[in-house]
Amino acid sequence: GTLGFLTQATLRLHPLPEATAVTVASFPSVGAAVACTVQVLQAAVPVARIEFLDEVMADACGRFSGKGLPVAATLLLELHGSRHSLAEQQQQMGEIMRQNGGSGLAWAEGLEEREQLWSMRHNAWYAALALRPGCQGYSTDVCVPISRLPDVVVETKQDLQASGLTGPMVGHVGDGNFHCILVFNSQDPEEAQRVHAFTERLGRRALAAGGTCTGEHGVGLGKRALLLEELGQEGLDTLRSIKAALDPHNLMNPGKVI
Amino acid sequence: GTLGFLTQATLRLHPLPEATAVTVASFPSVGAAVACTVQVLQAAVPVARIEFLDEVMADACGRFSGKGLPVAATLLLELHGSRHSLAEQQQQMGEIMRQNGGSGLAWAEGLEEREQLWSMRHNAWYAALALRPGCQGYSTDVCVPISRLPDVVVETKQDLQASGLTGPMVGHVGDGNFHCILVFNSQDPEEAQRVHAFTERLGRRALAAGGTCTGEHGVGLGKRALLLEELGQEGLDTLRSIKAALDPHNLMNPGKVI
Repeated sequence: GTLGFLTQATLRLHPLPEATAVTVASFPSVGAAVACTVQVLQAAVPVARIEFLDEVMADACGRFSGKGLPVAATLLLELHGSRHSLAEQQQQMGEIMRQNGGSGLAWAEGLEEREQLWSMRHNAWYAALALRPGCQGYSTDVCVPISRLPDVVVETKQDLQASGLTGPMVGHVGDGNFHCILVFNSQDPEEAQRVHAFTERLGRRALAAGGTCTGEHGVGLGKRALLLEELGQEGLDTLRSIKAALDPHNLMNPGKVI
Repeated sequence: GTLGFLTQATLRLHPLPEATAVTVASFPSVGAAVACTVQVLQAAVPVARIEFLDEVMADACGRFSGKGLPVAATLLLELHGSRHSLAEQQQQMGEIMRQNGGSGLAWAEGLEEREQLWSMRHNAWYAALALRPGCQGYSTDVCVPISRLPDVVVETKQDLQASGLTGPMVGHVGDGNFHCILVFNSQDPEEAQRVHAFTERLGRRALAAGGTCTGEHGVGLGKRALLLEELGQEGLDTLRSIKAALDPHNLMNPGKVI
């Protein structure tokens, strides 16, 4: 990366949980699915995984997998723990889902069935690309405080629709991080320009909400201007001084990030 | 500190658990108490707090509080969660304690009773000083990988006894971090020298076990030599270059750490 590279890693292993269960839940709106996520976190349900798909992404994943999914804002939820604690979590989760108008499949506990459900999510990138064969994909990557997530997701969804872009949404919503997978014709300068303008607006929307323009995909080349807006010149100068201290000959990823 | 100071903090709040329970458990040896801790972590009991006292510290804390504690290697344990999950954790914890020859008080669930038990631990420093009125206290602060903790604690205990020093042990053993509170006559150069020699051996014992000479108390002035042994000249030079980048005029804690 920018500051170094790994030569060795020591892992701390965690025990496998006694029991695991997965469900797919559909919600009446994107806002309801994200509000459900926030309430799950506030209720301290020790959720193992919670992944959001908007209705475009759910539809694409359902069709790509050949299994079908309701065309609705969707959460993929995984719980784990002891048998007793799992049953208790399932009950809590069911109540919070219902309060937000959601309804889920029966909980899948077998390994094969669970993997089949997760494979729909893991193939989201390819499912999105299959919406417009021959087009290119570009993933946005903002992250905002959990309390601001419902508003930011709803505004982004409206912006996507107003822009006339294909951009199914997936989100690691428990962390406040979500992606729009924009599928566009890179040979069409007008559409490419609309994608660019949308991603800038999204980055600034995240910054205005106290979030970051770069959740987990990094800054690279494309987000250097947004990083300056996020950190300010002084913040960026501080990063540059640390980079210079560790890499005085600028050998590591020259030109990237800062 | 060495690299900066806080001007603002944003807190992420966690919900209060539904139920909390505390016990004090006595073990036949220091090794048994620490082995119990390792097994609790390996069994993924979601323990809230787990604090170790050796028999000297347990005795001192029991007497200082006026409540008394068995003169034995001791764990103070706190569990939390939903009512059901708490009962399950108590059962698991009870089994692991018994397997290591430990036996605990009845679980305290009321706030006042829990606070009384914890106040014994929180007064450990004063309880240690009360062992030798008029003497000075000095706390060591090593941290080692959990898997090496039982051996390192047992060896340190033997070293303390062979050195003829007063040094009751307390440990945040879930993190691999423990302290010897050395209570010594700082007017006696010979005793002060024994304390110094002991702390150097302890630091090197932690380094040899893949740990660190400084768990949470910092390096300051006293551990600069051990930090060099821990990081090597190259590691220390890297820290110095980052310090110079962020604090070119060396205004923050000059002379400390590096």
